[in-house]
Amino acid sequence: MANEVETLDRLFAPGEETLLGDAGGILVGHDAISAFRQGRDGAPARIIGDLQVRDLGNDRALIVAMTLPASGGRGQQTQVWHRSSTNDGDVDWLIEATHVSVPAPAIAASVWRVVGSPLVAGAVDGPLVGKTVAVKDLFAVAGFAVGAGVPAYLAESPRSVTHASAVTALLAAGAAVQGIAQTDEFAYSVAGKNSHYGTPPNVAVAGAIPGGSSSGPATAVASGQVSIGLGTDTGGSIRVPASYQGLWGLRTTHDAIARDGLLGLAPSFDTVGWMTRDAATLRAVASASLGSAGRKAVFGGFAVAPALVALASPGVQDAFAAALMRLAEAGLTDDLVELTLPDVDDLHEIFRTVQSAEAWATHGEWITAHPGSLGGEIAARFAFGSTVDPDTRSFASQALELARERIESIVGDRVLLLPSASSTAPSTTADAEIIEQVRQSTLRLSCVASIAGRPALSVPALTVDGAPVGFCLVGPPNTDIALIALGESLA
Amino acid sequence: MANEVETLDRLFAPGEETLLGDAGGILVGHDAISAFRQGRDGAPARIIGDLQVRDLGNDRALIVAMTLPASGGRGQQTQVWHRSSTNDGDVDWLIEATHVSVPAPAIAASVWRVVGSPLVAGAVDGPLVGKTVAVKDLFAVAGFAVGAGVPAYLAESPRSVTHASAVTALLAAGAAVQGIAQTDEFAYSVAGKNSHYGTPPNVAVAGAIPGGSSSGPATAVASGQVSIGLGTDTGGSIRVPASYQGLWGLRTTHDAIARDGLLGLAPSFDTVGWMTRDAATLRAVASASLGSAGRKAVFGGFAVAPALVALASPGVQDAFAAALMRLAEAGLTDDLVELTLPDVDDLHEIFRTVQSAEAWATHGEWITAHPGSLGGEIAARFAFGSTVDPDTRSFASQALELARERIESIVGDRVLLLPSASSTAPSTTADAEIIEQVRQSTLRLSCVASIAGRPALSVPALTVDGAPVGFCLVGPPNTDIALIALGESLA
Repeated sequence: MANEVETLDRLFAPGEETLLGDAGGILVGHDAISAFRQGRDGAPARIIGDLQVRDLGNDRALIVAMTLPASGGRGQQTQVWHRSSTNDGDVDWLIEATHVSVPAPAIAASVWRVVGSPLVAGAVDGPLVGKTVAVKDLFAVAGFAVGAGVPAYLAESPRSVTHASAVTALLAAGAAVQGIAQTDEFAYSVAGKNSHYGTPPNVAVAGAIPGGSSSGPATAVASGQVSIGLGTDTGGSIRVPASYQGLWGLRTTHDAIARDGLLGLAPSFDTVGWMTRDAATLRAVASASLGSAGRKAVFGGFAVAPALVALASPGVQDAFAAALMRLAEAGLTDDLVELTLPDVDDLHEIFRTVQSAEAWATHGEWITAHPGSLGGEIAARFAFGSTVDPDTRSFASQALELARERIESIVGDRVLLLPSASSTAPSTTADAEIIEQVRQSTLRLSCVASIAGRPALSVPALTVDGAPVGFCLVGPPNTDIALIALGESLA
Repeated sequence: MANEVETLDRLFAPGEETLLGDAGGILVGHDAISAFRQGRDGAPARIIGDLQVRDLGNDRALIVAMTLPASGGRGQQTQVWHRSSTNDGDVDWLIEATHVSVPAPAIAASVWRVVGSPLVAGAVDGPLVGKTVAVKDLFAVAGFAVGAGVPAYLAESPRSVTHASAVTALLAAGAAVQGIAQTDEFAYSVAGKNSHYGTPPNVAVAGAIPGGSSSGPATAVASGQVSIGLGTDTGGSIRVPASYQGLWGLRTTHDAIARDGLLGLAPSFDTVGWMTRDAATLRAVASASLGSAGRKAVFGGFAVAPALVALASPGVQDAFAAALMRLAEAGLTDDLVELTLPDVDDLHEIFRTVQSAEAWATHGEWITAHPGSLGGEIAARFAFGSTVDPDTRSFASQALELARERIESIVGDRVLLLPSASSTAPSTTADAEIIEQVRQSTLRLSCVASIAGRPALSVPALTVDGAPVGFCLVGPPNTDIALIALGESLA
């Protein structure tokens, strides 16, 4: 219980066959199990209740124990032990496999701020009846305050009187709001780590970050707790968690969904979006929410930008290339063209400058009045925004307009294909430097749609070493629903 | 997945050694496992993801499988299989042990209506800082409606503007409200089965009813999800779930805790109460909530009423007698006297008549306007209340007053010792007849304190066949806190 890693390492059988499974997934091999232990603070204090022992023969025993945590409730540990002789002639018992269950908390606080059964009932009739929604904690839900992943902000936030439009649309179509889900602080990250509420688990990759900033809705959908994650995407906050957890995700065309009742970050790029486990649900959600916007057809064929793809990890590049090959072989992408976009570093710098200046304009006053309320990295991003002087901002805004026009003229009415993120989800214990590096290359990939105001669909179609990566389709403005249909065809 | 019981029975090894463990507990023996299967509707649809197979030797294999439920998320199955020869010379693989984990829901809807992290923060300073509360869905929590376990009632219920006094006291002492927990419909049962929201699990006894009507708070405390269950006790609604799940539970002196903001049932008997896993927390809660009320000392020694104890099952009678023996041997009950109370059937009839008449007075108008909104048994109890004519009610009220005076004169300033319930928790699959029989005998035990308006403490001190039963102390009015100290001494 004190997490004495050496002792535990000695108790588990060496080699590649040893197994440890818990709610986070199945770890295979002594090294993976040891690494997991080094990243945690210890196991909860507990005593053994009911204990069942079975002789399996061949020097093996099965132990099934009910565990009684000091914090209440009841868990279970199932273990296979193996008896062997040590070098000095003693016998030694080692664990070859273990399966650990712990009692569920009332609420997974890293994923959710409030949950109801349901929190808000939907209309009794409509295309989304039976579906449930995790609402990112940026949208107004009547009767609840908006917290934006920042406890000090929540503490002063008034209860919303009406729902945000994006919430109303889902309720009117029959979906129920299950709860309000966590976000990175003020949605200013794509990692999914919140310094106050913790890191939601990545359901697809044991021990990895969930992706953000729509981290809570993403994990809620991936874990089967809800059917729909309602989130936002400024620079990738729908596409990255969808990519990291193997979900369908749509960043909508800029301004296609009204943003009333939504606490924004950078209005030039802010969009509403959704994540689901299947395309049909995403299609129904988009159709119920988009009204007449987002219903344009796609006529222009496909394009790839090799300079963008080159930003991805070798594994992602390979998986993406293999997917393009399969699509070509299936005759689905005969008209694919290669495009040269403006320099990706320039695009990213324009995006970053406008985003941070707007983020400071949105939240700077509150942040100044509440020093120490944000985690270090997020605070640093806002601090950078505070240094953008009016001239720089004005220049960046003009550059943004030019960049948008250039992308428009280069891509035109084509659908741009690219990986949704530069890599699979990094480990939660990865160095901050590695996470930052992944973020930098992912934002260079994702900022193209953000700059262009175009819809971007992440399709859970790629796999690298067993971990998901999204296959992204960036369409012309207002082709949101056609993009989903296209994604389904390609998938 | 179709729950073909015969097929599953054939796949599991026969005999008393076979094991099946899941979140509900560990079942031992082929028969127990088979019986469990017959009581469920089938296992969730799922496919196998990652699959690990280990040869354990001696004709045994370990299977560790990640399961991917159709409803999303990720589970795990660990199984030990054994190969044997069948009578006709074929080989046959049978499961000797299995451990099943399924993904956690966003909210356990049988236990909770709303949960937050927290839902309402407590004062930053006070004796209950760090403690969390499950509030029975009868108390006003500002910003939320009261639902009383009845969805149709909830649908029309306005959001409360202020907290109930009992909630405010806990918040002021530093406890946080974790959420609003389920109750039997209008709190009119001691079983803990709600026809709309389901039956919260009994954490102490796999497959048993949780006890009610404070069922949600009880299970939330027993499962370690919160430290404090805030409930009510009219005829046993704190004592019975505490008894069934091995918790400390206090029904307070009638009127010692203000009932503003509490949706009552029968005001002559309604009281506020709490359940906790340990005595120290209960003492802190009572001390913070009771103000000057409930602080009288106990001077009168102990008493038992053999006619009451005789209502309990043989197992409970034995456990209770053994406990009295141990207390006597320890010299803690030298002054114990045996008392003869008024006829228990008469007492119960008086209680039942006044309770049902008052329950109808409280809720009759709403129930009449909302036919079909209640489950069958609860509806029948209210229907009986509607038939109590004014003369009968008046007569019963006078009889109640006389009964109270007689109990007062017989018990005086002594502490009456008795089992908290007539039996351990019945199985959820028990016949309605058996549950009704248990209810009848339990209410005859518990109605004495209800009639007398006296505080009653349930101490988790008895065990019958591995299942808990409460040891109950009924004290003179306003000895609530002294009763807890006394219970700790005896425990």
